Amino acid sequence: MAYRLAELAELVGGRVEGDPERTVEALRSLETAGPRDLSFVSQPRLRARGEASGAGALLVGGGARRPAGRDLLVVDDPAYAWARLLALFHPAEPRLPGVHPTAVVEPGAAVDAAAHVGPYAVIGARSRVEAGAAVLALAVVGCDCVIGEGSVLHPHAVLYDRTVLGRGCEVHSGAVLGGDGFGYATHDGMHQKIPQVGRVLLEDEVEIGVNTAIDRASLDETRIGAGTKIDNLVQVGHNTTIGRHCILCGQVGLAGSTRLGDGVVLGGQAATLGHLEVGDGVQGAARVAIMESIPARARIAGHPAIELPRYLRQTVLISRLEEMSRRIKELEKRLGGRGGEEG
Amino acid sequence: MAYRLAELAELVGGRVEGDPERTVEALRSLETAGPRDLSFVSQPRLRARGEASGAGALLVGGGARRPAGRDLLVVDDPAYAWARLLALFHPAEPRLPGVHPTAVVEPGAAVDAAAHVGPYAVIGARSRVEAGAAVLALAVVGCDCVIGEGSVLHPHAVLYDRTVLGRGCEVHSGAVLGGDGFGYATHDGMHQKIPQVGRVLLEDEVEIGVNTAIDRASLDETRIGAGTKIDNLVQVGHNTTIGRHCILCGQVGLAGSTRLGDGVVLGGQAATLGHLEVGDGVQGAARVAIMESIPARARIAGHPAIELPRYLRQTVLISRLEEMSRRIKELEKRLGGRGGEEG
Amino acid sequence: MAYRLAELAELVGGRVEGDPERTVEALRSLETAGPRDLSFVSQPRLRARGEASGAGALLVGGGARRPAGRDLLVVDDPAYAWARLLALFHPAEPRLPGVHPTAVVEPGAAVDAAAHVGPYAVIGARSRVEAGAAVLALAVVGCDCVIGEGSVLHPHAVLYDRTVLGRGCEVHSGAVLGGDGFGYATHDGMHQKIPQVGRVLLEDEVEIGVNTAIDRASLDETRIGAGTKIDNLVQVGHNTTIGRHCILCGQVGLAGSTRLGDGVVLGGQAATLGHLEVGDGVQGAARVAIMESIPARARIAGHPAIELPRYLRQTVLISRLEEMSRRIKELEKRLGGRGGEEG
Repeated sequence: MAYRLAELAELVGGRVEGDPERTVEALRSLETAGPRDLSFVSQPRLRARGEASGAGALLVGGGARRPAGRDLLVVDDPAYAWARLLALFHPAEPRLPGVHPTAVVEPGAAVDAAAHVGPYAVIGARSRVEAGAAVLALAVVGCDCVIGEGSVLHPHAVLYDRTVLGRGCEVHSGAVLGGDGFGYATHDGMHQKIPQVGRVLLEDEVEIGVNTAIDRASLDETRIGAGTKIDNLVQVGHNTTIGRHCILCGQVGLAGSTRLGDGVVLGGQAATLGHLEVGDGVQGAARVAIMESIPARARIAGHPAIELPRYLRQTVLISRLEEMSRRIKELEKRLGGRGGEEG
Repeated sequence: MAYRLAELAELVGGRVEGDPERTVEALRSLETAGPRDLSFVSQPRLRARGEASGAGALLVGGGARRPAGRDLLVVDDPAYAWARLLALFHPAEPRLPGVHPTAVVEPGAAVDAAAHVGPYAVIGARSRVEAGAAVLALAVVGCDCVIGEGSVLHPHAVLYDRTVLGRGCEVHSGAVLGGDGFGYATHDGMHQKIPQVGRVLLEDEVEIGVNTAIDRASLDETRIGAGTKIDNLVQVGHNTTIGRHCILCGQVGLAGSTRLGDGVVLGGQAATLGHLEVGDGVQGAARVAIMESIPARARIAGHPAIELPRYLRQTVLISRLEEMSRRIKELEKRLGGRGGEEG
Repeated sequence: MAYRLAELAELVGGRVEGDPERTVEALRSLETAGPRDLSFVSQPRLRARGEASGAGALLVGGGARRPAGRDLLVVDDPAYAWARLLALFHPAEPRLPGVHPTAVVEPGAAVDAAAHVGPYAVIGARSRVEAGAAVLALAVVGCDCVIGEGSVLHPHAVLYDRTVLGRGCEVHSGAVLGGDGFGYATHDGMHQKIPQVGRVLLEDEVEIGVNTAIDRASLDETRIGAGTKIDNLVQVGHNTTIGRHCILCGQVGLAGSTRLGDGVVLGGQAATLGHLEVGDGVQGAARVAIMESIPARARIAGHPAIELPRYLRQTVLISRLEEMSRRIKELEKRLGGRGGEEG
């Protein structure tokens, strides 16, 4: 596969600085690219690495200087253009429609003729696998589930009964949707299980990372909004609702009945106590501990979560505690020792 | 299925305020319940939501006011009553006894005639699956394991060799019991694996969440006490012993050789360093970091863990650091600037 | 199996204090050992437990006193000697070469005649399983993978396409290597997936714990150096490189493009922000949050990470905040109340 730089520019709505006829055969990292490759500087602070690269062409945002001997493909949003170019150069391999002879499809389950079911996959009773969907090797779909059009369950993904996936979802290996919510009524010191009779529902275009756990609701549903992307090893407690187009990084933990608005971003290992609301567009730093509801568009960090600028000042102040302590001692010395209360 | 309110009251040992003849067809959340449903206010602070609900009947604790047009089912312990009513309305589906023709049962393994083994499950040599137990699709039981009466392995649960489950345990999908403890002897800068020759033992009625990892002991056993409930994505290091009726929330991490007493509760992401003891009834807040042994019944929080009231005061003090810093500066000004030591 | 103590001493290069002819039949913990067993005091501070043990023989480092009636096996590095003795008394069970009849080996895949493939395992197209390697029950190997000589995939391990394992690696149950890196280009508020076209490569003798997730690189490779050991439930983001002989404890999270040098040790739940470098031999305490590059051999702790001694002082200072606050108040009182700024 090879393209002229001008073709690529047209595809992504950009313009060429330099030779529009340059041939691009591959997309490569700055470190490995050669003269017939296009590469990409992901962060402005790494621009020097771009200039040192052997790449014949570079994808850049506006305002970049053109290094000698290199051609530029200039776009407004280079990360987005890069994503589209990667999809062009690395088209997803089509999965052949059909059910592997070793797959178990239980009574009443319906697999669309244009769906793919891999070896040793199990599709539970009355579940539905829609056109273009793929249930890969050893994935398990419980009873009464729906796998929407074009959605993919990677090997070893598990859906408990009644889980519903919209269109274009992707559930990675080892992710488990619909596990029992962690609910007990403690009576005489014993933890009596509260049956969890709800379900998990993913709207369209949701991605769920490796070994992530999303528990089903005790009564209604745990719901993940359209376009939301969840990384690996994330814990989503029962009855949680997550809005549209959120980003949850690795190892985040949401306690039960958390409600996230749209466009929320939580950094790695962030956590929420349950029964609280996080407003639209909130950005939580890695490992933030959200212990009460947060208004829309706040930027927060710390444990407990506070506004980011205040958190940063607090971090500085903590680093100065030694100095503060010295200064208090000095003041006491100048006043003739500690006061009566202390001594 | 429908019951008169009076019947439900009898079952849970409560009393009706209002019409004992009211028909209850389903248990629903406050938001979705209608006149033929019973609903439940899980927390006193949510009582207003109960009054706004369309539920015909409400399950409540003592002292609740009866909203107009609603009937009350009043009990001493509403959460416990709710758990029992859910079990009545949503009985667990029985799993048919028998071994799926695709399951692999290795030589010397014994599956009780009243046990269920699902498709593509693997039961290792000399393992025993007792009456009423279920090894669901694609679960893997190693060699020399015991699955006690009525215990359930959900799809994709894995037991390494020699793991023993008591009666009535539930191991959720992706949980792995008996993995190699993380033990190395570092010699000349290389990490030489210390063979882990112990096992994992679960007493009765233990529940293990999705994708939780419990490592086997290096020599003896990693033991989880009866009635203990462990949430998703929890890490339990080798040689750990956990008492009876403990609760470990999501993403907790216990380092090796931790000893928890009975009735210990640890919030999400809490952690222990190894080789320490946590006394009976200790309650650790979410993300507490337990770095030394803790006496029985302590309530702790923070990193490192301290008594909860002290932790709360400390949190307030940290939030006042800016003010403290200003006050020190002010004192210095009043004394004519910083002392000699500082400049 | 039984050995004379003198034989064991010869094997591990130690010497006997007491009776070299004592028979040792088993290695047991201090609590369970009897007169025909050898036991081991893992930490010097536990020496009293060694003296209280019923073990006939004790493995110890130099300088230990010989308790009455016990024989000592004295070595320079007792943990290393213990590891070797355990391997002697508990040899790994050999896995028979051959492919289980239920395993699926896709076209173009090559399984060495001296490799073992268990029930319901799946080996993807063009993958290679080398001599002495084992792909256990229900493990899934994608396309174009390599499982090097003697490497083991435990039940339910998953390799995405193009993953390469060197020799002598061990991947535990539920671990997933090669999952999609978490990369999106956000455009008009939607998260557009950036195709992840790189791979994961493990050098020789790497061990990966239960349910750990290691994402493949967006372009090049996520690489784990020889001899590195990774515990359970660890998250390794895409494009990360980890040096040789590192130790990552349970629930560590490395964000994308982290670079760890050789011999790095990170305690449980430690985390890194991405795009930073951690030098050779750095030791990070449990839950350290590494937010910028760290020079070689630093010992760090805290959030954000600082040098360990400074962190320990800071912890003490935080615990004294209440006292500092009182002392400030006292100084103000002695100067006749707070200054004008405060009121």
